[in-house]
Amino acid sequence: MKNNIADIYKEDYENIVKSAIAEDLGAYGDITSKYIFNKNNISDGFIICKEKDGATLCGIGIAEYIFKTIDSSASLKILRQDGEKIKNKEKICTFHGKTISVLKSERIALNFISHLSGIATLTRKFTDIASDYGVKVSETRKTLPNLRLLEKYAVRCGGGFNHRFGLFDGVMIKDNHIIASGGVSKAIEKIRSEVPHTLKIEVEVKTDDDLEQAIKSKADIIMLDNMDCKHLRDAVKKIREILGNTCIIEASGGISLKTLEEICKTGIDIVSVGALTNSAKAIDFSLDFE
Amino acid sequence: MKNNIADIYKEDYENIVKSAIAEDLGAYGDITSKYIFNKNNISDGFIICKEKDGATLCGIGIAEYIFKTIDSSASLKILRQDGEKIKNKEKICTFHGKTISVLKSERIALNFISHLSGIATLTRKFTDIASDYGVKVSETRKTLPNLRLLEKYAVRCGGGFNHRFGLFDGVMIKDNHIIASGGVSKAIEKIRSEVPHTLKIEVEVKTDDDLEQAIKSKADIIMLDNMDCKHLRDAVKKIREILGNTCIIEASGGISLKTLEEICKTGIDIVSVGALTNSAKAIDFSLDFE
Amino acid sequence: MKNNIADIYKEDYENIVKSAIAEDLGAYGDITSKYIFNKNNISDGFIICKEKDGATLCGIGIAEYIFKTIDSSASLKILRQDGEKIKNKEKICTFHGKTISVLKSERIALNFISHLSGIATLTRKFTDIASDYGVKVSETRKTLPNLRLLEKYAVRCGGGFNHRFGLFDGVMIKDNHIIASGGVSKAIEKIRSEVPHTLKIEVEVKTDDDLEQAIKSKADIIMLDNMDCKHLRDAVKKIREILGNTCIIEASGGISLKTLEEICKTGIDIVSVGALTNSAKAIDFSLDFE
Amino acid sequence: MKNNIADIYKEDYENIVKSAIAEDLGAYGDITSKYIFNKNNISDGFIICKEKDGATLCGIGIAEYIFKTIDSSASLKILRQDGEKIKNKEKICTFHGKTISVLKSERIALNFISHLSGIATLTRKFTDIASDYGVKVSETRKTLPNLRLLEKYAVRCGGGFNHRFGLFDGVMIKDNHIIASGGVSKAIEKIRSEVPHTLKIEVEVKTDDDLEQAIKSKADIIMLDNMDCKHLRDAVKKIREILGNTCIIEASGGISLKTLEEICKTGIDIVSVGALTNSAKAIDFSLDFE
Amino acid sequence: MKNNIADIYKEDYENIVKSAIAEDLGAYGDITSKYIFNKNNISDGFIICKEKDGATLCGIGIAEYIFKTIDSSASLKILRQDGEKIKNKEKICTFHGKTISVLKSERIALNFISHLSGIATLTRKFTDIASDYGVKVSETRKTLPNLRLLEKYAVRCGGGFNHRFGLFDGVMIKDNHIIASGGVSKAIEKIRSEVPHTLKIEVEVKTDDDLEQAIKSKADIIMLDNMDCKHLRDAVKKIREILGNTCIIEASGGISLKTLEEICKTGIDIVSVGALTNSAKAIDFSLDFE
Amino acid sequence: MKNNIADIYKEDYENIVKSAIAEDLGAYGDITSKYIFNKNNISDGFIICKEKDGATLCGIGIAEYIFKTIDSSASLKILRQDGEKIKNKEKICTFHGKTISVLKSERIALNFISHLSGIATLTRKFTDIASDYGVKVSETRKTLPNLRLLEKYAVRCGGGFNHRFGLFDGVMIKDNHIIASGGVSKAIEKIRSEVPHTLKIEVEVKTDDDLEQAIKSKADIIMLDNMDCKHLRDAVKKIREILGNTCIIEASGGISLKTLEEICKTGIDIVSVGALTNSAKAIDFSLDFE
Repeated sequence: MKNNIADIYKEDYENIVKSAIAEDLGAYGDITSKYIFNKNNISDGFIICKEKDGATLCGIGIAEYIFKTIDSSASLKILRQDGEKIKNKEKICTFHGKTISVLKSERIALNFISHLSGIATLTRKFTDIASDYGVKVSETRKTLPNLRLLEKYAVRCGGGFNHRFGLFDGVMIKDNHIIASGGVSKAIEKIRSEVPHTLKIEVEVKTDDDLEQAIKSKADIIMLDNMDCKHLRDAVKKIREILGNTCIIEASGGISLKTLEEICKTGIDIVSVGALTNSAKAIDFSLDFE
Repeated sequence: MKNNIADIYKEDYENIVKSAIAEDLGAYGDITSKYIFNKNNISDGFIICKEKDGATLCGIGIAEYIFKTIDSSASLKILRQDGEKIKNKEKICTFHGKTISVLKSERIALNFISHLSGIATLTRKFTDIASDYGVKVSETRKTLPNLRLLEKYAVRCGGGFNHRFGLFDGVMIKDNHIIASGGVSKAIEKIRSEVPHTLKIEVEVKTDDDLEQAIKSKADIIMLDNMDCKHLRDAVKKIREILGNTCIIEASGGISLKTLEEICKTGIDIVSVGALTNSAKAIDFSLDFE
Repeated sequence: MKNNIADIYKEDYENIVKSAIAEDLGAYGDITSKYIFNKNNISDGFIICKEKDGATLCGIGIAEYIFKTIDSSASLKILRQDGEKIKNKEKICTFHGKTISVLKSERIALNFISHLSGIATLTRKFTDIASDYGVKVSETRKTLPNLRLLEKYAVRCGGGFNHRFGLFDGVMIKDNHIIASGGVSKAIEKIRSEVPHTLKIEVEVKTDDDLEQAIKSKADIIMLDNMDCKHLRDAVKKIREILGNTCIIEASGGISLKTLEEICKTGIDIVSVGALTNSAKAIDFSLDFE
Repeated sequence: MKNNIADIYKEDYENIVKSAIAEDLGAYGDITSKYIFNKNNISDGFIICKEKDGATLCGIGIAEYIFKTIDSSASLKILRQDGEKIKNKEKICTFHGKTISVLKSERIALNFISHLSGIATLTRKFTDIASDYGVKVSETRKTLPNLRLLEKYAVRCGGGFNHRFGLFDGVMIKDNHIIASGGVSKAIEKIRSEVPHTLKIEVEVKTDDDLEQAIKSKADIIMLDNMDCKHLRDAVKKIREILGNTCIIEASGGISLKTLEEICKTGIDIVSVGALTNSAKAIDFSLDFE
Repeated sequence: MKNNIADIYKEDYENIVKSAIAEDLGAYGDITSKYIFNKNNISDGFIICKEKDGATLCGIGIAEYIFKTIDSSASLKILRQDGEKIKNKEKICTFHGKTISVLKSERIALNFISHLSGIATLTRKFTDIASDYGVKVSETRKTLPNLRLLEKYAVRCGGGFNHRFGLFDGVMIKDNHIIASGGVSKAIEKIRSEVPHTLKIEVEVKTDDDLEQAIKSKADIIMLDNMDCKHLRDAVKKIREILGNTCIIEASGGISLKTLEEICKTGIDIVSVGALTNSAKAIDFSLDFE
Repeated sequence: MKNNIADIYKEDYENIVKSAIAEDLGAYGDITSKYIFNKNNISDGFIICKEKDGATLCGIGIAEYIFKTIDSSASLKILRQDGEKIKNKEKICTFHGKTISVLKSERIALNFISHLSGIATLTRKFTDIASDYGVKVSETRKTLPNLRLLEKYAVRCGGGFNHRFGLFDGVMIKDNHIIASGGVSKAIEKIRSEVPHTLKIEVEVKTDDDLEQAIKSKADIIMLDNMDCKHLRDAVKKIREILGNTCIIEASGGISLKTLEEICKTGIDIVSVGALTNSAKAIDFSLDFE
């Protein structure tokens, strides 16, 4: 139920959708269809998945919103929900509406579904592995411009969890902050005295010394960056000894489907993976008339 | 020179950039850096490519625009231009600016460069093959929402050519139009009597009968959809016999780097490939302080 | 049927309408009516044409949209459609709605109808003459700021055809381009190798030499600028000899209702007239209560 | 000096200008020029009036703003100011800038100047007559959508005076208000007890009875609607007898250049003319390279 | 009836409301409630006043609009209208809607009601005193940024009257204008010859000399600034002797609930009080579930 | 240094400022000043505080931004910084600019400074007391619509600390959430398994049972709502025994300057006060010419 577009405040994606419509229709609209079809001509049809290995669906609610925005008289019957696994040639929805409106909606809707399902499908591959170890999978801030909200939603549809939204709603201390502050402890101290007390402090750790300071200063989250499994295991051990489960341990940096299982075995809590959002292959969908 | 962001009217991408900045900075800005760094603290550094096989660069001008938008006192020295091939570990620019501003700009700029260079790099692989045969490579309307303009620019940076921008600036007659009109000829006739005389008429052709009608009605562009090489060769022959070079012949549908060369040999003028824009893997870049 | 505002994507004119409403109502609204009328007071009435010689109607759909935008409970019964010829004192619609809302809508709606019907009426005078010769009448880019879409719609309502929408969706090579390129042929060649293959290339021609090069380079459209009828006839002859009907011949420059018929006789395909959109006299309409 | 665009708050017209630029350039910009000219190519030239009988200039400041908005490195040397009478073939400015930028600016700037100078020129014809009688000339709310501010500025450039901006900043009691209130006196009384005390109350008067009530209730402005000269003279006499010069007398309704002088002689203070803004013929200007 | 939000054109406050919603919900919405409540869970409840001394209500219509904007399926039953006096613990409305939507709406709606009722309540205290003397109470331009329209509405709900909306819809001549013009008379003369004839001219007067000139030049409104009661009485006497009731007399500057009655006795027509809008204490309201 | 407007990303307040300017200037601008002053007339002057007891300054940077936005040629010399205590009659800045521009800027700038300094001044009174006890003072979400960012900045200028920005960047579990979840522990558990791991979980506690569960579930922040000092002391003792300083203890609900000191003595970490932002009296400032 949480993977339903209706859970997102509509204001948050309607401008994205409206701009995308404007982008494709421009000033003159669909100059092919409008001279061919009678404006009251009605069509029925469906959208199907055309991916040999199937996919995890994301974007069916957005698709419906696009059809409705372009023509409020159009109707979609949703057959499969966001977050569900779908097979090749499986119909995900049927539609009924003015032919001209359907043809305007087609490519815009498919572009959203293809991209978001691509992310959900890739995320699902990661979570299918990680969930056996109780490890969460999360995206990073490596998202495509202005699509972050929807891409994070797609990650959830694939069974993932979300990281901070942006620079503004979570603290993340990295090397440059550490150097400028004179060490991890001083950086944490400085930040803790200033930021809203409602936010956690995460530290990206690369060295043993940084790790020790992060533990000592009780960082809320410690992110182990680009470490191999041995280093991860050692770090997890040190953190758990002092902070127990009150500190969340995150691994990041070049994690792939190949390396994931080994990493999950190290005892970390969460992995964050940039490729989920910026390198997922589009899933092929097709809109057909009946 | 044509692959320079300065050739695009700034108004066209500045809203995209400004929204992307707002997306990441939210209401409170970079809550980590602003409490660590003195606001007048200055940093120098560079952006480097971290892709083993190198890449074709796209987005350096956008990156500069982002740095300048976030802080007009920042300066970038551009070392490599959009459209150039770059190697792993090659510096593409150096920067000088307030540390706080640089850290705000970092991820936003890298997200643009990574995505656009991904498209340029993939396109370049196609054009390196196709150019030997005098065949142009073009994207389709399978672009990511609201990024079409920049993605089409990235295609050009990879040596490609652009197709129509959207539904509004080019006519494309597909199956549904053909059925509804009672054949290709009637569809062309209808459209030709209505659309601005400044626009060309393209027909997507799947059958011999459609092809014959398209030729007879002197379609400006004939798009051969999902045909194998034999069918392509036959179609090209028929078209050239009657229309010579006045008709542009386009091949489309599932064209991959593997099948491209054979397709180019069939005598077509241009291939259009959806994967260029919706399935290109991000190129890894990193921003480092000196 | 194509002259119905419903054929235009609503997003394209709703901002224009909403700004126009805001322009007239400002922060305080209609400070006269709101203190006079009970807010539930209902009025019935009609809009009539008050033009001695009648007019060609354009804007009735926009008027309805304005009434509905200001007050969704208002209703209009449309008696005459856009594109129809109407007589002096003819009612074009009746309305029923809250008095306060009707009075807010009145001037805003009339301003749109008056301007657009002015254009449609003037265009109709041109097309009544030109259609006998199979010549199309088209507007130019000499439109009023931000009203181009609606003005082009008005031209269609008057029986005219549309030219390119702007600088972006059609190529038009003029003197400066010709000089800079070293001649018409070189200009066409340069452009043809760069622009989307879906767009036509039009050349504005003033001299015999330019004409010859345009013919030789197979310009898609040749625009004969400011030529007298003798020159037009000669040019048409030369073009037809080589290019037959594959080249569209356009005449432009100071064409008036007086000179139109002679120009149509020269064999050209289309005339483009700036005055249609920037110098049409408003048609007088009046809103009356019953 | 008051007829300088710099007197208008820039925010008020910059959105109009920016939309007009976007309207013409669309997503791809000037697809002709950008492939012809080297982007650093510079041009010099001028804008000249091409109107046989000359004109009253309006819009030179807007033109400069457009050139600068499209390319901040462009420069205009303004030779004639808004509000000045100019002759046929007179240069109104010279320019220096990148060729590509100049060609983008050309039509957009000329469209503004042509329309606004059309209004200023027509207004000047009215004020040249009326000023001999100390009568002011004013526009009405019959303006083109979203251009009201600039059109009112053009009226001032032609020597005219402005009426209320919209429904919100001035009270105007018309027939429907009078009927609904049970007479002019009651309408004035109702309004006076509610509206900001800073606003004047104007009454549109058609009958003797209305006139008497308006005088008795000390309307701030009495508008005599569609009266012939005899009726106007009578009304003026009655008003002056009771209210002297404290009441402003306005005549409106079908006033033309032919009838203006006689109307001015009746002793009224001001005429308001809808045709100034909705039916002025465009003035022809041309941009030429040197 | 005039103190109903429905009298304000919805376009004028909907952007304020929508921004306020976005301000509170950000990109992720209500991250607490969405993980607790089933999205179809329904709640009933009410909003009550929690102010010991009661209050004058303002904002109930805005509250309803917020509930409806966040979730169109929510319903409010309004028990008390804007402008009515309410008691401590009095319910002003009941609601029925999805729990998640109600919790999103709660703080946003209460913030509007608390602020606007604060203004209405304070205004009511002034008007309860002033109305006995036939003196109107008005706000000034000392309003909070972008809330002026709603704050002026709140003043009306408290029985007050509105002053000019901004700098644009009423003339107000102050010291600097007087000095620059060489005296009140010259300032009035200058302005009168230029501004729309539909606007009144108000002069802020501090000295006897200024007062005399203002009277002589027949200022429409004379504002007596920061004068004690004796000076006010003298000034009123002088004005009435010459101009009778045709001149509106306004007192302003540091007027408090303590000094108001004495000031009202001096014969002035209206007082304007900045504190009404910029210093009113919020009224406490609470939303409770049943 | 952190109390400088330059620390806020300009994009975040520029729309607020631009709307506020548009609100006051409307379509016609300052219709008084523009007819009085020569547009090149220059004025010098200053802004002074006119508050008997002095104030804590906030908004001088915004004021400068307003002056510059209205006229980029204006210059301000800032004499006192945001966050500093200022005395009655103390000059906070001098200015130099075109008279017309200064008069446009005056009221808009003063409205911002007066409101924000009101908040800073009131906050400073709270922090002057609380800081002796090491207790932080924070605002709540009871802010004025669309001014939250600036009001939170004003709180910082008064020595306060910020709470979560809105519903989206911090979890706050209240009674309704507790009831719906079946207790505090279950609510915390549910939320913890879903929200981004970067966010803290705060629980509003009213009963002993809730408190015990909150402690047991290791709430990151416990907010003690509307408790008297005895209850606060007891609650603090219980929390510290189990959670030590890892849990932040917040007191809220009706805290006034009178009750603050006693509350601070109970051992809590932070107080949150709604009145800081919704009931602060405006500070009086005046702009004078020299």
